[in-house]
Amino acid sequence: MLDSLFRPKSVAVIGASTKELSIGNRIVNNLIDFGFKGSIYPISLKADEIHGIEAYKSILDVPSDVDVVHMVIPSKFVPQAITDCGEKNVKFVILNGGGFAEIGPEGAAIQEDCLARAKKHDIRIFGPNCQGIINTDPDVRAYCNFTFTKPDPGSISIVALSGGVAETIHQGFSEMGIGTRMYASNGNACDITIPEILRYYGDDEGTRVIVLYVEGLRDPETFLEVAWEVAAKKPILAMKAGRTEEGAKAAASHTGGLVKEDLATDLIFEKTGILSFTDEEQLCQAAVAFSTQPIPKGKRVGMITNTGGPAVIATDVFINAGLKIPPLSEKAEAVLRGKLFHEASVGNPIDVLATAGAEHFRIAIDAMMDENQIDSVYINLVTPFFVDAESIVREIVAVNKEKRKPIVCNLMTDKRQWAGTVEILRKGGVPYYSFPSTAAKVLTSLAKYNEIRAREIGEVKKFDDVNGKIVEDVLRKVKEADRKILSANEVYRILEAYRIPAADWRIATNAVEAVQAAIEIDFPVVVKADAETIVHKSDIGGLAVDLWDSDSVQSVVEEMEERLEDEDLKFLIQKYLPGGKEVIVGAKAEEGLGHLVMFGMGGIYVEIMKDVIFKLTPVTELEAMEMISSLQAAPLLKGVRGEKGIYEEGIIEIIQRLSQLVYEYPMIDELDMNPVIALEDQVFVVDARISVANSH
Amino acid sequence: MLDSLFRPKSVAVIGASTKELSIGNRIVNNLIDFGFKGSIYPISLKADEIHGIEAYKSILDVPSDVDVVHMVIPSKFVPQAITDCGEKNVKFVILNGGGFAEIGPEGAAIQEDCLARAKKHDIRIFGPNCQGIINTDPDVRAYCNFTFTKPDPGSISIVALSGGVAETIHQGFSEMGIGTRMYASNGNACDITIPEILRYYGDDEGTRVIVLYVEGLRDPETFLEVAWEVAAKKPILAMKAGRTEEGAKAAASHTGGLVKEDLATDLIFEKTGILSFTDEEQLCQAAVAFSTQPIPKGKRVGMITNTGGPAVIATDVFINAGLKIPPLSEKAEAVLRGKLFHEASVGNPIDVLATAGAEHFRIAIDAMMDENQIDSVYINLVTPFFVDAESIVREIVAVNKEKRKPIVCNLMTDKRQWAGTVEILRKGGVPYYSFPSTAAKVLTSLAKYNEIRAREIGEVKKFDDVNGKIVEDVLRKVKEADRKILSANEVYRILEAYRIPAADWRIATNAVEAVQAAIEIDFPVVVKADAETIVHKSDIGGLAVDLWDSDSVQSVVEEMEERLEDEDLKFLIQKYLPGGKEVIVGAKAEEGLGHLVMFGMGGIYVEIMKDVIFKLTPVTELEAMEMISSLQAAPLLKGVRGEKGIYEEGIIEIIQRLSQLVYEYPMIDELDMNPVIALEDQVFVVDARISVANSH
Repeated sequence: MLDSLFRPKSVAVIGASTKELSIGNRIVNNLIDFGFKGSIYPISLKADEIHGIEAYKSILDVPSDVDVVHMVIPSKFVPQAITDCGEKNVKFVILNGGGFAEIGPEGAAIQEDCLARAKKHDIRIFGPNCQGIINTDPDVRAYCNFTFTKPDPGSISIVALSGGVAETIHQGFSEMGIGTRMYASNGNACDITIPEILRYYGDDEGTRVIVLYVEGLRDPETFLEVAWEVAAKKPILAMKAGRTEEGAKAAASHTGGLVKEDLATDLIFEKTGILSFTDEEQLCQAAVAFSTQPIPKGKRVGMITNTGGPAVIATDVFINAGLKIPPLSEKAEAVLRGKLFHEASVGNPIDVLATAGAEHFRIAIDAMMDENQIDSVYINLVTPFFVDAESIVREIVAVNKEKRKPIVCNLMTDKRQWAGTVEILRKGGVPYYSFPSTAAKVLTSLAKYNEIRAREIGEVKKFDDVNGKIVEDVLRKVKEADRKILSANEVYRILEAYRIPAADWRIATNAVEAVQAAIEIDFPVVVKADAETIVHKSDIGGLAVDLWDSDSVQSVVEEMEERLEDEDLKFLIQKYLPGGKEVIVGAKAEEGLGHLVMFGMGGIYVEIMKDVIFKLTPVTELEAMEMISSLQAAPLLKGVRGEKGIYEEGIIEIIQRLSQLVYEYPMIDELDMNPVIALEDQVFVVDARISVANSH
Repeated sequence: MLDSLFRPKSVAVIGASTKELSIGNRIVNNLIDFGFKGSIYPISLKADEIHGIEAYKSILDVPSDVDVVHMVIPSKFVPQAITDCGEKNVKFVILNGGGFAEIGPEGAAIQEDCLARAKKHDIRIFGPNCQGIINTDPDVRAYCNFTFTKPDPGSISIVALSGGVAETIHQGFSEMGIGTRMYASNGNACDITIPEILRYYGDDEGTRVIVLYVEGLRDPETFLEVAWEVAAKKPILAMKAGRTEEGAKAAASHTGGLVKEDLATDLIFEKTGILSFTDEEQLCQAAVAFSTQPIPKGKRVGMITNTGGPAVIATDVFINAGLKIPPLSEKAEAVLRGKLFHEASVGNPIDVLATAGAEHFRIAIDAMMDENQIDSVYINLVTPFFVDAESIVREIVAVNKEKRKPIVCNLMTDKRQWAGTVEILRKGGVPYYSFPSTAAKVLTSLAKYNEIRAREIGEVKKFDDVNGKIVEDVLRKVKEADRKILSANEVYRILEAYRIPAADWRIATNAVEAVQAAIEIDFPVVVKADAETIVHKSDIGGLAVDLWDSDSVQSVVEEMEERLEDEDLKFLIQKYLPGGKEVIVGAKAEEGLGHLVMFGMGGIYVEIMKDVIFKLTPVTELEAMEMISSLQAAPLLKGVRGEKGIYEEGIIEIIQRLSQLVYEYPMIDELDMNPVIALEDQVFVVDARISVANSH
């Protein structure tokens, strides 16, 4: 539990200093300045007091218990200081200074030493190479941090390893006049992790919204588990940077940490219901609305405006984002027509006109709140000098207090001249933005979040008709032989064991068996050379398709036997079934996360059009359906121009069975079924590859 | 010329009033308040003076000449007032009030009346239903406008019909602490147009950047011509709203104007070199940088940072936008290594570290300015309390004054505590933003603009080997017969006349001729029923492909003759050539703009993958090449997996010949060549349709 870290009763600063521009001075000053409710203990070899507070020579001299100790001393002195803190029963140490893992092996060794000593004494380390924490709770007022932005109390909590970004976001809120709740920037994060902090924020009643910035997930498994829990309680708005190769390199160089693939991070965000952003300014703007507004129940927006153009801009934003601007009910229109100005535009948007006063706005907002087909309210408000803008916003605030539906406001004014108007909105908890696009994008985020949270992903279906014993046998033998690539025989046995349909096949060891197999299967057939050493069959002339009689099969096999000269050479004889649509279903292990399951249409659709969908295992039926329908080329699978669609149920089942297979056998590193032939009434694999990771 | 409008020597206000909340009062007040350098003449039936200035009963009583007259009287009195102004030799009338075309036919009639009277007296009308103009030129100081944001002098000029959006943009600049030059919001725009204002801004020396907002272009031809001229002189940053169907409807309802297709607007922007935005906040942020910074000569960014995470974010933005972050020269690295802190990261980005002072920043910036492979400089600056931020930004400002390369700054600070730092940057003309993404996007806009302006579109090639007489003949006959759709015979004659290659064809009127034609062409052939009334050949069984002998041709033709029973029935006999890649080349007339020429891969690529490129006529060779290479499916045409590409030169020529054809014969409404078969060494049309607009 991080309670003593975020709600400390006493904070000591080892390395406290009287030098004004030192971090050791600044932290003491920040604690005092911010009105810390607990005790402050500067520890200094030189000074007797700092900022008027008695200083001690050693942490061991402090007369009471200490919850949190800041260390702003050179890294080489830190291990011993941690041991001292252990003697003092200190609970948390914040290592503000650098000189640890981020500078290389020497620093990493010191960091390891610190961690070992801390573990021994049940001390938790925050950092090193970090800013620290802030808690604005009026009962705590802990500014355990050397930065400079002093926030008002609020309900948004921020967590990021990167101090620069955490602080930028923090300043962003401050610039928007919005308070924050807690703040944690833990640098190298050698001990206390992002998931732990997320969980703490999740349990903190004062936190309504969590803002998260990551450049990579160090322990995706734990992250997924914790994010799942926390996101169920309150919105997590997140940004993952280091998305480009160059960005990832920059991230690696400043964190020294491992950067996981974006795709996995995105899928975790998607799976756990975290709202993802790629622009931190937009993230901050949205967080402000999340901190005060209810989540809309749907994507139908009611728009109110007193000027034309900005409503056009906002309409574009909503429609492009898939939101709806439904017409109003006849009843509502009749009411509005009777009460608004004659020239007002009664519909959605409602244009109350620039001359509209508070009563007109109130009528329009009330109408939107009463309309069942409206889930949220967007207001464009310009402040012409001839209307009483303060009265107008007072009405907006009054309705906002009822919290029936979210309200987002585009306030177009000179904020200096109309400072009173701005202040009424701000204090009234109505999110307002200077540009229509900005405000509309914020409302879009609220609606998108509802969609994420309301999304059913269904239950994971467990197929009981599978034969795990066969898979185990095959994989054990592969492992024993220290191989990585499975033979065709092995691949098809595994598919069969998991009832993944494949074109009818037999294994033959010579031409006679091959002809016999072909007759059993019925012509036309395909012959594929199969040996553990053969990976790309077509490259070595180990593939012959569309064979229509015994003679062809015999001569093909004999020719391959002669040419390929492999001791283990076998032949996969398989039914040749031309026609249908080619799709790809695959899975790839993702460290700490199970597997990514992939679906797309074959060939150029994946390679050139990049039209492919991924999900994390285990994949549910609903997710598998979504994989098909969210392809850009989905209409081709569903049937265009009167053509019948493919047998989707079959593909959906293959995806789920594949998901179960790799989930149950994590040593499968990669499984590619390419192509799977999809017809109107059946689907079947015609080529597949499996590779395993023998380190598992 | 609009000089007397934007630089009036005297302004009268008809409808001036002593009532504080009236527009007639506000305009007089604004003129005084803003320090108008000319004379102000309130015209009022009731008051003798307004805001201490003598009022006149009639414009005719004013003792001197009047350049601009505001009218804030009910619309029904406006026509007579315009006649009075005519007697007074007034040059411009700004109609601030509503009650004109925007309210319906009655208002439109008044508007027409006003326009007619104004024309008679050589008066130009600005508006009606508009805000007016502003000119911050210290010699003029004209605030002929009833709004409330009083700008500082600057170099950005704004033009928009929509008062709401113009004012929002204006406020945006004011909020960013940036002055503006001129402002024009002309509402219904019954007389003075956007292109006229653009041209005026283009000629105005004080205007460095033009910001344009449109919801549609009323006269695209003139707009294109003027934008071409003006954009060659200075950057035009534009936003087109009403892009969605719903947005366009909202736009139409508030402007009463015609909304042109987005595609055409986008192509005009592209062709004339206007930088297009879809978010007005991003537009404003970018305009600030355009107003002070030189345009970078390329897309290679040098990054300097004193904190890690924000550099990661900015890197992502640059790389995603196609910018480059090249490594520094060895020489530069050596210099930096010697002069920066030991732990500083010397590369691109240069991480000078949080402890870096002014001298370190200066060294880093100078290095970036000296590096030949760097075109622009991006600076992340967080302001830790232990460094002298003001000194740092003074160095940035000093380098900025040299204007060698553009500088964009991400300033992460508490703007209240660091007000001095902010002010130094602002006064020093260094664009700064609170978020790394925002600043990086601004720099990206600068680089993108350079690309647009530096882009060669080449010369239009005129093919002299075409036979216009044949086209004229065909089109004249079609026109005489008042038909819209051309027969296959006519279509292929036109293609032949313009030397657009088609699969070999003949026209036959009966089975005997058909067989003869097939023999001449050589089998296999296609038979297509052809009559003016037949549009969809395949729907009526008027198409037979892959015919290999005379008997097949004969029986097909006889069967069609019997079944289709059309007096004019003829048969197109065409060479059947299977294989190759199917592409589509087409053109469609766009009112006032010539034609849009379209290119894409056939079938699903256009219909489902939406992979299609448009250009405006006349299309140059370079543009035609770009049409091919900017397709997402371009690799398929260029050859993948060892496969040879198509004969691109052939397609490029077809596109240019098509462009010339429709450019020379604007009565062609639509011409679709679908498919064009593209092989390795040749391309040819196998089906085409032409329709004409008989109103031409």
